[in-house]
Amino acid sequence: KVVRLAVIPGDGIGPEVVAATVPTLRAALEADGDRLDVTSFDWGGERFLRQGAAMPADAADLVKRTDAVLFGAVGRPDVPEHELIWGLIIGLRQQLDLAVNLRPVRAFPGVPTKVRDTDGVDLVIVRENTEGEYVGAGGVAHAGSGHDLGIEVAVHSRRAIERAAHHAFALAGRRSGRLCLVTKSNAMRYGYPLWDRVVREVGERYPLVQLETVLVDAMAARMIQAPRSLDVLLTSNLFGDILSDLAAVLAGGMGMAPSANVLPGADVPGIYEPVHGSAPDIAGKGMANPVACMLSGAMLLDDLGHTGAARRVRDAVAGALRDTRHHTADLGGNATTADVASAVQHAMEGQ
Amino acid sequence: KVVRLAVIPGDGIGPEVVAATVPTLRAALEADGDRLDVTSFDWGGERFLRQGAAMPADAADLVKRTDAVLFGAVGRPDVPEHELIWGLIIGLRQQLDLAVNLRPVRAFPGVPTKVRDTDGVDLVIVRENTEGEYVGAGGVAHAGSGHDLGIEVAVHSRRAIERAAHHAFALAGRRSGRLCLVTKSNAMRYGYPLWDRVVREVGERYPLVQLETVLVDAMAARMIQAPRSLDVLLTSNLFGDILSDLAAVLAGGMGMAPSANVLPGADVPGIYEPVHGSAPDIAGKGMANPVACMLSGAMLLDDLGHTGAARRVRDAVAGALRDTRHHTADLGGNATTADVASAVQHAMEGQ
Ligand SMILES: CC(C)[C@H](C(=O)O)[C@@H](O)C(=O)O
Ligand SMILES: CC(C)[C@H](C(=O)O)[C@@H](O)C(=O)O
Repeated sequence: KVVRLAVIPGDGIGPEVVAATVPTLRAALEADGDRLDVTSFDWGGERFLRQGAAMPADAADLVKRTDAVLFGAVGRPDVPEHELIWGLIIGLRQQLDLAVNLRPVRAFPGVPTKVRDTDGVDLVIVRENTEGEYVGAGGVAHAGSGHDLGIEVAVHSRRAIERAAHHAFALAGRRSGRLCLVTKSNAMRYGYPLWDRVVREVGERYPLVQLETVLVDAMAARMIQAPRSLDVLLTSNLFGDILSDLAAVLAGGMGMAPSANVLPGADVPGIYEPVHGSAPDIAGKGMANPVACMLSGAMLLDDLGHTGAARRVRDAVAGALRDTRHHTADLGGNATTADVASAVQHAMEGQ
Repeated sequence: KVVRLAVIPGDGIGPEVVAATVPTLRAALEADGDRLDVTSFDWGGERFLRQGAAMPADAADLVKRTDAVLFGAVGRPDVPEHELIWGLIIGLRQQLDLAVNLRPVRAFPGVPTKVRDTDGVDLVIVRENTEGEYVGAGGVAHAGSGHDLGIEVAVHSRRAIERAAHHAFALAGRRSGRLCLVTKSNAMRYGYPLWDRVVREVGERYPLVQLETVLVDAMAARMIQAPRSLDVLLTSNLFGDILSDLAAVLAGGMGMAPSANVLPGADVPGIYEPVHGSAPDIAGKGMANPVACMLSGAMLLDDLGHTGAARRVRDAVAGALRDTRHHTADLGGNATTADVASAVQHAMEGQ
C-alpha cells in the first residue's frame, strides 16, 4: 500500500524536524512492504513574504488529495503572526473541520524532566479544535478613545462538544476507563456549564467510562503534582492549548510533544504536528529535537492503519532516547537533529 | 495603633486556618505594642442554608468599616457553588472594586516540592481582578433544542488593564526591574491585543522596568521549567487564576499560597485569602495547612503599614517550616493545624 503524505515543512526548525522524520516514516513503512509518496508544500512565512499569503486559497482542496499532512512549524520574526496563525495553522484546522486535537504525553525512560517522579506518565489531552475562545469573534469598542473596551466572544456549541466528547469517551474506554473533563464552570457561566452538561449526557452512552470534572486551575496544579492520576483529559480549545504545553514538561519539554488534528470517522486528512513552534532562536543550527515530529508521524501512521509501522517508529525513538548521547540540547544533551535521526534509524534496523 | 480586622472564616477548613492565623497576627502586632480588634462575619455556605444568601446585601458596607478582611474559604457540597462564588467571593471582589489580586509564590527552605530545583523561587502574579472572562456576560442560544450554543463574553477595559499594569510596573520596579506580561494574542484577537498595547503604553512611564510578553501556553511550561527566570507577572483574571494554582506547586502546593485582593491607592479594605478552597474532604480533621492563611495575614499587615509585624509572621513561618515535624499532610508530614500554629508562635517568641 501507498501512503500519500502531504508535507508542510514551514519555517524555522520546521523543515529540520520534518527532514529528520520523513525518512524514518518511510523506513518504517518499507519494512512492511508499504510505500511513502510525499508531496511537499512551501506554505508558511517565506511564501507570505513572496506572495502575500501563507497558503493558497485552495489549500484545503490540495491537502484533501492526500491521506494525511505532516506539518513542521510556522513563524518568523519578519512576518505578522496572524498571517501565519489565522492564515495557516488555525485556518487549515478550521477549513478542514478537524474537530479534535489529540495531544498525548508519555514519559520515555532515560529522558530527564524538571518534575520529580514522572516514570510511567502516559496521558492524552483531547482538545476541542474548532471553536471556543478561538472563533475570532469580538471587537474593540471606543477604540483609541482612552476608554477602549476589548470584547472577546467564545462560542461553545453542543455539536462541537459532542464530537470531542465521543472521541474522548471512546478513547478512555480503550485505555483506563477514566475520563477527566476540564472546565471552569464556577467562574464562567454559559460555555463551560454547557460543556459539563453535554459531556455528562454523552457519557450515558459509555457506562463503562468513569467521568470526573475538574476545574482548570486545579488541573494545572494536579498535572504536575499527580500526573499519574490522569489518563484521558477532555477540554476546550484554550484550556487544551495551555494544559498541553504544561503536560509536555512531564515528558521533557516541548521537543517531546506530538499532536494530531483529526476529524474522527470522516475521510479528511488529519494534520500531524509537533506542538513546539518554529523556534527562530535555534533555527538553522541543526540542534532541534526531532522527537515531537517523529512521534507525530507515528500518530499519523497509526491513524492510517499502519499500526505496525507506527509501533516501529515509537519503539525506535524510545530505544534511541535511552542513551543520553542521543539527547538534543533541550534535553540537556548535545546531539544534533541528524544524530537523533540516525540513532532512530539504527534502532529501527536493529528491531 | 489598632488594626480593625474583619474575619470571614467561611466553610470547610476556612475556620480552621483562620483560627490558627488570628492569634499569630495578634502576637505579631502586640510585639510592637499594637492591637488587633476582630469582627467576625458568619458568611458562607451555612448562612446560605439558613438564610438563603451567603452574605447580607450590605456586606460591602459592613466590611468598609474595617481596615482589612481575612477570608478563609467557602464551599460546601450541599450548597450550589454559584451562590458562594457569585454570591460571595467574586461578588465581594467586584463590589469593593478590588482591582488587583496579588499572588506571591516563594519557596521556603525545607519544604519539599514536586518540581526539581525550586530553591530561591520568589515570584508574584499580578492578576486583574474585576473583569475579563469573569464578568458573567453571555448566554445560551437554542437552549435545549439539541443545537445549544454557549456564548461566553469576556470584557477587557483599558481602565482595568491600566490599574493592574501600574501596580505591576511599580512592583517590578521595587523588585528585579523585570515584568512579564502573559496574554494569548496569537489566537484571541481583541482582548489580549488590547492588553499588549495598553501595557506597553503604561510601560513608557516606567523606563527602568523591562517588559517581556509571553503567551500563556508557553508561560505554563516555563513556570515549571525555569521558574527562577520569573519575577513579576501581569495577567488577566482567568490566566492569573490558572497560573497561580500552578505556581503554588513551586512552593509545595495550595497549602502554601497566599493572596491579596486590593484596590491600590484607595481607602478600601483589601481581602486577604489563602488560594486553596474549603477542602471538604479534610475539613474538621484539624489537618489543614494554615501557612497560606498566615502568609495572607502577613500581606495584610504589610499593606496596613505594619511591616515589622508582617516580617515577624513570615520569618516565624519560615523558621517553623525548616523542621519537617511542623509539616502538615499536604507537605508529606503529619503535623496538625494546631501544631503548626504553636510552632509559629514559638518561633516568633524566639525572635
Ligand atoms: C500557534 C497557536 C495559535 C497554537 C494554538 O494556540 O493552538 C499553538 O499554541 C498550538 O498549541 O498549536
Ligand atoms: C473560586 C473561584 C471562582 C476562584 C477564581 O477562579 O478566582 C478561585 O479559583 C481563586 O483563584 O480565587
